[in-house]
Amino acid sequence: MPGLGLTPMPEGVLETLGRASTASITSELFKLGIRHSFMTGVAPLSPGDKMVGEAITLRYLPYREDLNAKQSVADPEHPQRKTIDHIEAGQILVVAARGDVRSGTLGEILMARMKARGAAGMVTDGAVRDAVGIRSVGLPAFVGGVHASASNTLHYAADAGLPVSCGGITVIPGDILVGDEDGVVVIPREYAARIADISVHHDELEVYLFERITGGESLRGIYPPNEQTLRDYDIWKKNK
Amino acid sequence: MPGLGLTPMPEGVLETLGRASTASITSELFKLGIRHSFMTGVAPLSPGDKMVGEAITLRYLPYREDLNAKQSVADPEHPQRKTIDHIEAGQILVVAARGDVRSGTLGEILMARMKARGAAGMVTDGAVRDAVGIRSVGLPAFVGGVHASASNTLHYAADAGLPVSCGGITVIPGDILVGDEDGVVVIPREYAARIADISVHHDELEVYLFERITGGESLRGIYPPNEQTLRDYDIWKKNK
Amino acid sequence: MPGLGLTPMPEGVLETLGRASTASITSELFKLGIRHSFMTGVAPLSPGDKMVGEAITLRYLPYREDLNAKQSVADPEHPQRKTIDHIEAGQILVVAARGDVRSGTLGEILMARMKARGAAGMVTDGAVRDAVGIRSVGLPAFVGGVHASASNTLHYAADAGLPVSCGGITVIPGDILVGDEDGVVVIPREYAARIADISVHHDELEVYLFERITGGESLRGIYPPNEQTLRDYDIWKKNK
Amino acid sequence: MPGLGLTPMPEGVLETLGRASTASITSELFKLGIRHSFMTGVAPLSPGDKMVGEAITLRYLPYREDLNAKQSVADPEHPQRKTIDHIEAGQILVVAARGDVRSGTLGEILMARMKARGAAGMVTDGAVRDAVGIRSVGLPAFVGGVHASASNTLHYAADAGLPVSCGGITVIPGDILVGDEDGVVVIPREYAARIADISVHHDELEVYLFERITGGESLRGIYPPNEQTLRDYDIWKKNK
Amino acid sequence: MPGLGLTPMPEGVLETLGRASTASITSELFKLGIRHSFMTGVAPLSPGDKMVGEAITLRYLPYREDLNAKQSVADPEHPQRKTIDHIEAGQILVVAARGDVRSGTLGEILMARMKARGAAGMVTDGAVRDAVGIRSVGLPAFVGGVHASASNTLHYAADAGLPVSCGGITVIPGDILVGDEDGVVVIPREYAARIADISVHHDELEVYLFERITGGESLRGIYPPNEQTLRDYDIWKKNK
Amino acid sequence: MPGLGLTPMPEGVLETLGRASTASITSELFKLGIRHSFMTGVAPLSPGDKMVGEAITLRYLPYREDLNAKQSVADPEHPQRKTIDHIEAGQILVVAARGDVRSGTLGEILMARMKARGAAGMVTDGAVRDAVGIRSVGLPAFVGGVHASASNTLHYAADAGLPVSCGGITVIPGDILVGDEDGVVVIPREYAARIADISVHHDELEVYLFERITGGESLRGIYPPNEQTLRDYDIWKKNK
Repeated sequence: MPGLGLTPMPEGVLETLGRASTASITSELFKLGIRHSFMTGVAPLSPGDKMVGEAITLRYLPYREDLNAKQSVADPEHPQRKTIDHIEAGQILVVAARGDVRSGTLGEILMARMKARGAAGMVTDGAVRDAVGIRSVGLPAFVGGVHASASNTLHYAADAGLPVSCGGITVIPGDILVGDEDGVVVIPREYAARIADISVHHDELEVYLFERITGGESLRGIYPPNEQTLRDYDIWKKNK
Repeated sequence: MPGLGLTPMPEGVLETLGRASTASITSELFKLGIRHSFMTGVAPLSPGDKMVGEAITLRYLPYREDLNAKQSVADPEHPQRKTIDHIEAGQILVVAARGDVRSGTLGEILMARMKARGAAGMVTDGAVRDAVGIRSVGLPAFVGGVHASASNTLHYAADAGLPVSCGGITVIPGDILVGDEDGVVVIPREYAARIADISVHHDELEVYLFERITGGESLRGIYPPNEQTLRDYDIWKKNK
Repeated sequence: MPGLGLTPMPEGVLETLGRASTASITSELFKLGIRHSFMTGVAPLSPGDKMVGEAITLRYLPYREDLNAKQSVADPEHPQRKTIDHIEAGQILVVAARGDVRSGTLGEILMARMKARGAAGMVTDGAVRDAVGIRSVGLPAFVGGVHASASNTLHYAADAGLPVSCGGITVIPGDILVGDEDGVVVIPREYAARIADISVHHDELEVYLFERITGGESLRGIYPPNEQTLRDYDIWKKNK
Repeated sequence: MPGLGLTPMPEGVLETLGRASTASITSELFKLGIRHSFMTGVAPLSPGDKMVGEAITLRYLPYREDLNAKQSVADPEHPQRKTIDHIEAGQILVVAARGDVRSGTLGEILMARMKARGAAGMVTDGAVRDAVGIRSVGLPAFVGGVHASASNTLHYAADAGLPVSCGGITVIPGDILVGDEDGVVVIPREYAARIADISVHHDELEVYLFERITGGESLRGIYPPNEQTLRDYDIWKKNK
Repeated sequence: MPGLGLTPMPEGVLETLGRASTASITSELFKLGIRHSFMTGVAPLSPGDKMVGEAITLRYLPYREDLNAKQSVADPEHPQRKTIDHIEAGQILVVAARGDVRSGTLGEILMARMKARGAAGMVTDGAVRDAVGIRSVGLPAFVGGVHASASNTLHYAADAGLPVSCGGITVIPGDILVGDEDGVVVIPREYAARIADISVHHDELEVYLFERITGGESLRGIYPPNEQTLRDYDIWKKNK
Repeated sequence: MPGLGLTPMPEGVLETLGRASTASITSELFKLGIRHSFMTGVAPLSPGDKMVGEAITLRYLPYREDLNAKQSVADPEHPQRKTIDHIEAGQILVVAARGDVRSGTLGEILMARMKARGAAGMVTDGAVRDAVGIRSVGLPAFVGGVHASASNTLHYAADAGLPVSCGGITVIPGDILVGDEDGVVVIPREYAARIADISVHHDELEVYLFERITGGESLRGIYPPNEQTLRDYDIWKKNK
């Protein structure tokens, strides 16, 4: 299931996006008409965590006694276990947990499996358990909270590979996710290459504007930049 | 899609459940180990609304500009329109809206179509629009709220026919729903016949106990009933 | 336990308070320095419900498997059953439920028992179950919501007779509660007689001021009333 | 202050809007690019309340002891009293209360004054007090809740006549508000005439489509209507 | 009051529990049927804080002017002061604050007193004040938030030594609490010895499984472990 | 606009307040009758951030398509840009964002401009974007959250220089704000000098009491201090 069979990203797109800030990406998506792209209430578990990759999804529904009784995490077809066991390099697991943080969605051993498979990270609007253990794994986790309870005290692992809501944003399998200190932005797959190109420029320009503002200039004409400022930027860029 | 291809309910089960109160059904489900069965935050739009039927599901995700732009309600394959247009007699539409009531999920004309198809009702943990119009249709609606905005200002109609969360309860297509003044209970399909049998007894016993308590007796031995009270009940029942 | 052994209220106090509006009582308590007296999120189950009486309290804590397993509602010493079975005439049961409405706290049969005992009503910041049944009993209920689940799916009936928080207000057993369309006000017991006296005047004055404002006069000098308006009121009152 | 000195609405605009449903108006605003127009969490205090009018605003900030101590409701310049005392015919008072319903914002006497002045109604995302009294006045009130406490237990009446947020929507003095069973829609003043024109058509078309769907036709081509359906509608309209 | 007069814990139980993770303990409690054991919304004030000890409880109710006026923190019988002044070695103070973080519940000097008495820590679902000061004391604190206001701006210290709700979990005096990076788990006192035994095994097994998963093995048969894996673990354990 | 034209603070007041803890200041304000002074839900973006200064305010209302379309951040009169561009030394920007953290209110470049102007910090009950960038600027920020979206995806910058609500507290331009690890306290301008005087004493006394409690003394007579303890403190102070 994790293999999504999608047209591969052009080379360099993910690398470029990985160097961009989520603030820049969110701004550029907005200019392209995508206002809803950044998750609310989801933060890096470890300060400094950064990630970029392709979304695969896992959907949790509320615990229901009869349904949970029918499934076992020992079953290799269990949606959570199967998805994690077969995650592919560069993928990011999105665990849609209805924003309910009264239970963990997974812990360190499942994170370790994903790390071993080469996954790029995980994100959930629920909680994770064993924060210390997860940090020791070293795979970036962006989470709605921390809670020691196991997932099956609150959740029913319904299915994988479907569109989901996470942190208030719809995620389609194959979307590109970027995570940094601010949190996680969802880039519709077909926008990724374009956003990568723009974001390089956006970040560089911001560095330039930041320098000028830090140097004591007024916002006027600088932020946002007017024509003259953009010309000055071009010169600065060439001379760098 | 609405035709679920499930083994039909034994005759009389739905009729019997329709006469039971959701309080009795919830109690009996609890005795069978199902603690999570009653939706929270979902109330009848019109006082007195009652419904019983088979769940079909529609799943709303958060509005996303690129996704919403790709779909049109004029398209007969649009998940919302297709599901509603083909709903079958006795079915109840469950619109999973993440508990977000900042927009309606549907209004009077779609309710009228479901009424014309013989649907048994609808339930959402989102809102509906045009409350007056919906009341005029006469199809029971159990809702999280009322909001005049159209669904596509907040929601993306992702798909239909999947397990969903509604009012904090997981609903599987084919589950039996009963709604009354208290709200909506979800009966796992394979429990429905059994619950129907029990609930007849449960409600009748409650009537008897209510009479005795109203008559001035202490709760002791009556509520919950002890052996003697149950024997008295059997006699009362025969003499009725 | 319900017998509180307190100094009885002076004759007529409860009757007088029962004629006052909660808005007037809340205003007068505020003038006496009690800013926190009116419950938030608690409404009459049936429009038109009015009640006045003496608080007795029941405290619900979160369900915990080991604790709930140790108690039975068949046990006459169960805090909920004992309190309700022995409630006295004129008392109001306050069920403190942490504002959690994901389960009922009691239903029609327990309401019927309280009615038979002469109780004056009940109030909870949780939910009640079987709204139709409770309305048929005719005992006023002021509630945070309606939910069909039985109390022991969410709550543990910890104890009775203690100070509690209900609707954000601290209630001490013996406090006087008044409920009307707006909701429920808590009058510290030692303020009750004084508030009764004042509220008669307050309501009457409001009728007078309402008449004048309805007649087209400006608020200026009328609401709030200045000296002249108060003198006019005295004359109006005498001539009534 | 209430006199806003704005270009008057063209004749008939308010009357027309008063006959339109908020659902239709919200839909038409959305087509014109206004996605955020309908208040969330604000409902009519009395079923059946309808209103249309021009917004004037009153802004409540959190109670602060030093600020509240400096103002008196006996002062004719008190922002709440002044605004209400001088409200003009056809105006609707918008009380911005930060969605905080733990206190009333006003009660029956102030409602009576507004009624006497010819106001068209009031709306708040806070609560009102003395629901019974307000209903007796007969001026439509759209509210976030009901709470008996006086406004100065929670609020500081900061100022009037400014843009405010109410029910999650920005309201500018002079905007046109329409309220019905669903709640309240905010129409930017310069859109009002245009929306009035469109909404007449919209509602009439909906009646026609409703008839056809009720008659048993499929949604396909009818809702939304295709070219043929629109032509049929034109004929139906002429023949009416 | 803090001396609970309970049968002492068998030697070594607390030490063992103090080495276990809350994730392991929560999992083992769940296997024993205790699904509700881990507090939600309560986190360590200082990263790295760990604690284990016996619960004593303090109950805060909403501030009420007449009740707060009757008590003084200078009174040695004041419930908060008395409980803290006499806390015993190894105890953990549980301050039940209704999850209301709009005020601190205590600050550095009271923490210092508990430290001097040998207390093992404190936990509240309210806030604490003077975070820097509390960190300097070095006594672990698990909190719902940080707020500089003194407790008596929001709370009334009602009593001590009673069952309470904290972070959504019922705590009985004498229960064993364990806190780590994830938060706080409540172990019913009579389960503590058993949980201590199991948790040693659980943690050790997890270390083994973590190693294997990190080494690149599939989850299948390893997590959860099948019979063979458990046999391998026994060998690994012997050879360690 | 930022120049408030107020009577300057007496020399040393701000310096003194900057050395006081917000816990002490909040306590002293409470003794003077100001119960509502400390923001809820607002925390330092960077641990260790401290600030003191004079409030200037910026008011965000909900995004509305027609209003946002009429303003441009390139316009020097745009309320956000104008306020930030002209902020004066020692001022703190208060961005009132209705507690809505689903979007940033500003980012690093605007923070850099304020830093260059000599501002003392910023506070918002909304979010900020580009947390890493803001930390690099080195200007203290106290925030309700972090979100990468630009402000105009959620907010409309309505105006500046007005009283606002931030973190549940009313802020008047010119009020003195102090921020530390606990968060932000609002000191009414006319109380600032008095609070500065008292807080020096308060903090020093707390150091003394902390020492005694840490030394193992009971709370009795020490905290709160009785007459004797205060005399001992005077001696300790002289001997320091």
